[in-house]
Amino acid sequence: MALILTFLGQGSSEPAQVAIAAGQKLAGQGTRVLLAVQESGPTLNLLLGTVVTTSPTEITPNLKAVKLSSTFLLEQGWEQVKELEAKYLRSPTLKNVYGQELGILPGMDQALALNALREYDQSGQYDVIIYHGDSSWSTVRMLGIPEILSWYLRRFGQILQESDIGKALSPFIQPITSAILNVSWSADDLTQEPTNRANDILDQGKTALANPKRVTAYLLTSSDELAIAQSQYLWGCAQQVGLTVKGVLVHDREVTNTLTEKFDPLTVTAIPTGTGQDLTALKEALPDFLADSQPPQPITIDVAAKEVRVFLPGFEKKQVKLTQYGPEITIEAGDQRRNIDLPTPLRGQPVKGAKFQNHYLIISF
Amino acid sequence: MALILTFLGQGSSEPAQVAIAAGQKLAGQGTRVLLAVQESGPTLNLLLGTVVTTSPTEITPNLKAVKLSSTFLLEQGWEQVKELEAKYLRSPTLKNVYGQELGILPGMDQALALNALREYDQSGQYDVIIYHGDSSWSTVRMLGIPEILSWYLRRFGQILQESDIGKALSPFIQPITSAILNVSWSADDLTQEPTNRANDILDQGKTALANPKRVTAYLLTSSDELAIAQSQYLWGCAQQVGLTVKGVLVHDREVTNTLTEKFDPLTVTAIPTGTGQDLTALKEALPDFLADSQPPQPITIDVAAKEVRVFLPGFEKKQVKLTQYGPEITIEAGDQRRNIDLPTPLRGQPVKGAKFQNHYLIISF
Repeated sequence: MALILTFLGQGSSEPAQVAIAAGQKLAGQGTRVLLAVQESGPTLNLLLGTVVTTSPTEITPNLKAVKLSSTFLLEQGWEQVKELEAKYLRSPTLKNVYGQELGILPGMDQALALNALREYDQSGQYDVIIYHGDSSWSTVRMLGIPEILSWYLRRFGQILQESDIGKALSPFIQPITSAILNVSWSADDLTQEPTNRANDILDQGKTALANPKRVTAYLLTSSDELAIAQSQYLWGCAQQVGLTVKGVLVHDREVTNTLTEKFDPLTVTAIPTGTGQDLTALKEALPDFLADSQPPQPITIDVAAKEVRVFLPGFEKKQVKLTQYGPEITIEAGDQRRNIDLPTPLRGQPVKGAKFQNHYLIISF
Repeated sequence: MALILTFLGQGSSEPAQVAIAAGQKLAGQGTRVLLAVQESGPTLNLLLGTVVTTSPTEITPNLKAVKLSSTFLLEQGWEQVKELEAKYLRSPTLKNVYGQELGILPGMDQALALNALREYDQSGQYDVIIYHGDSSWSTVRMLGIPEILSWYLRRFGQILQESDIGKALSPFIQPITSAILNVSWSADDLTQEPTNRANDILDQGKTALANPKRVTAYLLTSSDELAIAQSQYLWGCAQQVGLTVKGVLVHDREVTNTLTEKFDPLTVTAIPTGTGQDLTALKEALPDFLADSQPPQPITIDVAAKEVRVFLPGFEKKQVKLTQYGPEITIEAGDQRRNIDLPTPLRGQPVKGAKFQNHYLIISF
């Protein structure tokens, strides 16, 4: 199992340079690295001096690069969908639609990339996968898929099953979703503890995301006030999807002290601004991405104390909203909603109080 | 009907500054402007010195700003879905799910924003709507929705109708899709000419996008080689979704000549780099966005000559792929696929030849 590493920051060429330098540094230390590039446009090709293709190709010893092209991945995925349909439905109808025709709608990029990362991770061929996406916000939305999609499945699974539509669809949905997601739609499974559904592909994603040794992000900023404010906000957004941020990289040594305060308890590392293709100085300045560290966990649940602590840095109190409309508690911040599936003793209990203190939302039952 | 104007460029604060300056300039000329901000993070609030909310609020006379917040828009949309369900289905089941619980999956941002833009456009309250999205790529994907989604509907509509799933679903799908999209699923309508489906909301979107007086984009770049290459690529991607690019704004007067060559036939305008909140110089340098000009049309079809010309700047020949797997012709470039629904005399005809010349893909039948 690999560590998936990503850099959240503005601009195009700077995060790309940091991603490449990080890959070269780790590969030089004997780590098997895959640089997975989703960014549209020629930036990374120009920086690497080679065209990154849809198959992993060696750049330097131990460092491979691959282009996560949505048209290519959708074409591949479509073949699998057709096979599944032919296997499970008596009269398959998709055989006359070709993967080569399919256009890309918003959201497909992230779903396809996440699935590709999962497959590269499972291949066992890489120790570190560096993901370089189109934008930080798109990366955050992508890493939110397992958490949010599994909420939609648990919330709508039961409702759909009981509905007329669900009854009409069940002969089709059940075999296909169980084949794709390893999710069963029977009522029994839906009420079981999440730990019993370890096969669930989405739960595997959530588990990986919750472990900073499996998925981790670094913020990339400059001395510009706007860039710093944006990075603080991104820090909060990352925490909202359960993505652990391990440190801050800044292009200006002068501001490291200010940033250490603003991003406490993260480590702040000064890095030189890249100068074209020569990344030597940048490589040297980068921190040890594999070092053990204890960044704050996005969420901790203390059943005995009936307390849930959610780490939400980068937001002010008024930007965080706690509601309890449905069966779970919902935290709204940074144009995201996070529904927290509580363990049995707290599940369905009304919230008694909530306070926002030192970047933590503390909810008591 | 408003002009929807957007700026495609890297970084966060520079496109934001240009969007604000453009809004102020147009408003100062008596044009009613809405600045519709989807970008995550505090950048625009800091630049405007005020918090942009989910309702359009006046910033200066004639200039309003609104935040396109996905959580807010989804909540609103969900209420409409519940109303539709209650109206068309005998046993509605969604009433116990609240909009306030719903998380945001990738793709929702773009779908919700496009719908919001459509509604603000139809309100008749604005002459110009400036859209400031999260990233240029995300804007391109968003503006591709009408074209690509309508392809999925016409390609899968018939197939779904004939399938077992389609038969099981038809009592539910038909009333709801016709209510939402004004699309009828009957076989008759699907075979009619696109012009007869003028009510179709997606066709309205496609028509608007095809008209540079309704939707237009400017590229924003610097003298940096990587930024220029990225902008050329974005130019091609914009054309691939049918978005007309009208000009180039560059932060460096020295390179205007080079760029005029690289971006021929677009107009290149030099603009000063923003200095914090003082946008006076930037406002003065901006071009007249409402001036008449004849930028190249993304696609022209000459039925008599049996020729289709697709304007695809920014790509090299090897980056453009033409296929004809399905009933339409498919152009693949820039990690996008565009299916071209040809008029009757050319529909279903095999492609006889194709060449790539002066940024045009010329296809003959």
